[in-house]
Amino acid sequence: MSDHAATRKSPHKVEEHLRQIAKLLEKHRLVETLVDRDRTSPRHDLIESLVHRQHLVELQLKLRSLHPADIAYILEALPLDDRLLIWQQIEDARGGEVLLEVSEAVRDSLIEALEQPALIKVLSQLDADDLAELADAIPDTILAEVLQSLTTHDRDWLQATMAYPEDTVGHLMSQDVLTVRESQRVEQVLLLLRGRNDLPSNTDSLFVVDSRHLLKGVLTLRALLLNDPEKPVGELMLSNPVVFHCNDAANDASRAFERYDLVSAPVVNDRGKLVGRLTVNEVIDYIREESEEDALNMAGLRGDEDLFAPIWDSARNRWLWLSVNLVTAFIASRAIGLFEDTITQIVALATLMPIVAGIGGNSGNQTTALVVRGLALGEITPENTWHLVLKEFGVGLLNGVVWGATVGLFAYVLYWNLPLGLVMAAAMLLNLLLAALVGVAIPLILHRLGRDPALGSSVLLTFITDGMGFFIFLGLATVFLL
Amino acid sequence: MSDHAATRKSPHKVEEHLRQIAKLLEKHRLVETLVDRDRTSPRHDLIESLVHRQHLVELQLKLRSLHPADIAYILEALPLDDRLLIWQQIEDARGGEVLLEVSEAVRDSLIEALEQPALIKVLSQLDADDLAELADAIPDTILAEVLQSLTTHDRDWLQATMAYPEDTVGHLMSQDVLTVRESQRVEQVLLLLRGRNDLPSNTDSLFVVDSRHLLKGVLTLRALLLNDPEKPVGELMLSNPVVFHCNDAANDASRAFERYDLVSAPVVNDRGKLVGRLTVNEVIDYIREESEEDALNMAGLRGDEDLFAPIWDSARNRWLWLSVNLVTAFIASRAIGLFEDTITQIVALATLMPIVAGIGGNSGNQTTALVVRGLALGEITPENTWHLVLKEFGVGLLNGVVWGATVGLFAYVLYWNLPLGLVMAAAMLLNLLLAALVGVAIPLILHRLGRDPALGSSVLLTFITDGMGFFIFLGLATVFLL
Repeated sequence: MSDHAATRKSPHKVEEHLRQIAKLLEKHRLVETLVDRDRTSPRHDLIESLVHRQHLVELQLKLRSLHPADIAYILEALPLDDRLLIWQQIEDARGGEVLLEVSEAVRDSLIEALEQPALIKVLSQLDADDLAELADAIPDTILAEVLQSLTTHDRDWLQATMAYPEDTVGHLMSQDVLTVRESQRVEQVLLLLRGRNDLPSNTDSLFVVDSRHLLKGVLTLRALLLNDPEKPVGELMLSNPVVFHCNDAANDASRAFERYDLVSAPVVNDRGKLVGRLTVNEVIDYIREESEEDALNMAGLRGDEDLFAPIWDSARNRWLWLSVNLVTAFIASRAIGLFEDTITQIVALATLMPIVAGIGGNSGNQTTALVVRGLALGEITPENTWHLVLKEFGVGLLNGVVWGATVGLFAYVLYWNLPLGLVMAAAMLLNLLLAALVGVAIPLILHRLGRDPALGSSVLLTFITDGMGFFIFLGLATVFLL
Repeated sequence: MSDHAATRKSPHKVEEHLRQIAKLLEKHRLVETLVDRDRTSPRHDLIESLVHRQHLVELQLKLRSLHPADIAYILEALPLDDRLLIWQQIEDARGGEVLLEVSEAVRDSLIEALEQPALIKVLSQLDADDLAELADAIPDTILAEVLQSLTTHDRDWLQATMAYPEDTVGHLMSQDVLTVRESQRVEQVLLLLRGRNDLPSNTDSLFVVDSRHLLKGVLTLRALLLNDPEKPVGELMLSNPVVFHCNDAANDASRAFERYDLVSAPVVNDRGKLVGRLTVNEVIDYIREESEEDALNMAGLRGDEDLFAPIWDSARNRWLWLSVNLVTAFIASRAIGLFEDTITQIVALATLMPIVAGIGGNSGNQTTALVVRGLALGEITPENTWHLVLKEFGVGLLNGVVWGATVGLFAYVLYWNLPLGLVMAAAMLLNLLLAALVGVAIPLILHRLGRDPALGSSVLLTFITDGMGFFIFLGLATVFLL
């Protein structure tokens, strides 16, 4: 019960732990350098091994006192060499727990660093629920071997949950459900619990099932604690609780956890049979991972990236979007190419055109961000889409008039050229209107096509506001200024 | 206990509810139009009021069957007129709960729509914890009046929590703690609980205090349920649990909830006195709000924006960053202005320069996004900063060689001009190196200055990669191509 009690203190402690580990590592490296310098000495090997061992023992002691989640944090914050040195000092029995806690990108680096037998040893300490969480990161051959050591029931469970797509409740649920029957009395349930060694984490309710394991309701621990021990479960249970289906989207489920302040909830299959449980800590992890992934995707990173990944891995993680960007930038630049003659005659246009394009992109991105969020929250429906388009068009019009006038004035003052100022103002207005419409349309279309609207919206939008910004501005200039 | 049971079903229901409400609203509007056309008829007023009343009753019935969080979702997804119509149909007794559930931006629109007496009526249904959550949104005079109706104890509590800065544990905590003594036996605690009507939501543990209300430990419900009723609390409690202080950063606390899978945790003051409780549902709300705010901030929105805000409000919400962007774009464009003579002679430069600037900005934003996340996770420390800088410089160098060669080749092929291709390649390489360094430096410096590194990083970075991109490219061209 209080297994990790001694290590759970103030949340600030975790940064203190990191500092201590970093200090130990520094000592370790310092000695290594000193000994290296003295490599000719006959005592070299002896000294090295002695001092090494002393420091490693110190590290191991420190690590043993830490919660696996704190070790995970430390591993994430250490450069690759140090990280692997620490990783080697962690006992097999705790390695699995640490793997569960680290971020996906760092997990890959840790798994890669282990030899096959060591990895199997670490994984064999985990139960089926934990293995299901790691399964995607484990090489198939090793996973197959680890599966051998599970009971048939656990193996079936693992394969069933892994078969659900990643963003579904089925993929996130765990199998550790506690069930009771409607006919049992509170007293009986309490006795039953007292006979157990432990409760699954995040247990705030028991699930009520019938003889065919169909879900009948949910009995909260609260109901169990507050009511007369003589009362039957059937009378106290919530008969219409929030229930999830295996195929429900994880995003909808996480929203429901937020809306209804859930700690745990039953998961049923199509026939209403209880198959698992979804808990708030899975949901928090999911929310955090999704929001981080979205933020990285919006900035043009393909996926989770380890802060200290090897340069080559990092660079490759960024190439997809850089190359897309290169193509769009080239196409947009062709819009300028069309008007090279115009620019030769009025070189001020070259100076001013990035302003039209840039502010258009900025304003469009504001719209896109709002629409992406609205879609994620399920707030945008066929009924209100037109309202939204009209509103954003209105904002674009207002912004277009205000900012168009501003940049037009600037251009006029800069070059004392009134027609140039007017063309600039008109181009700005048109590009902001376009940005508003495209800013709403792109995420909506991506969503309608069943794609993640956060992914690529911004690149696509900037492409259009850049290309069209150049085209509109230089086109107007060609018509009215030459 | 089962008050909302009947309304808690599948998570998908909430979108179904929205559709039904939208349909009722449509009927309502349709009748309004028909009756309006027939305004000359003497029976006009009668028909209007009858039909109206019928539809409103239908709406009210539907709303009464919904969970407050579902009503909140529906209000957020409705255009302003419809939203306020629905808001008027909600009983005073539930209005407060709905206000607690809606997003901040929508909350403002609802509070604005209520007359002072109606607002006071709605707020007077809430307890001190709930009022503390809403306090920032309520006009001061009204808040003062509502405070009058609270007990002295509640009023003191409310004023104390409101005094803590927004991003601290003190601001998020609630006062509904259940305490026991070390000397009590399990049996006694169970009897005590059975005497209560209810438990605070998210109660997974009781807090153990001494006579001076100093926190001694935490007794989980699990320990209460699994152990011999004769055992004393002192023997079963966790004597070293995760404890938060009022002044702890909310972000650190939310990280600790994730790391240690907490459902609730005690909050103490500087003297170790128990003053409140932090729960997982507060933490989830906090995580969600923060990540949404970050996403909107990164896209250049000042704060939370209601999807259906009036055009004027929306436009103003976007002006801060648009005006910053306007200034930076103008300054960057002056870098082009310096080289107008060069452009007149080689107009191809005008076509190519946005590519150098754009890809630099993209690549720098990738770096910035990673660093911002690393800072938020506390993974970047003085010890590993140099590692990070070197790694990002390495990635920049690799990208610079690869993409520099690519764009150089394109430029060469496009204009059959080898020196132009070489200048393009060199400018791209230099701008990507600059982007890597600046991409690490900007969020680190903002963080060191105690500011949110997510806010403005991207604008600042793009300013530098644009301005310097133009300057480097046109400068090299002036030196080598003229």
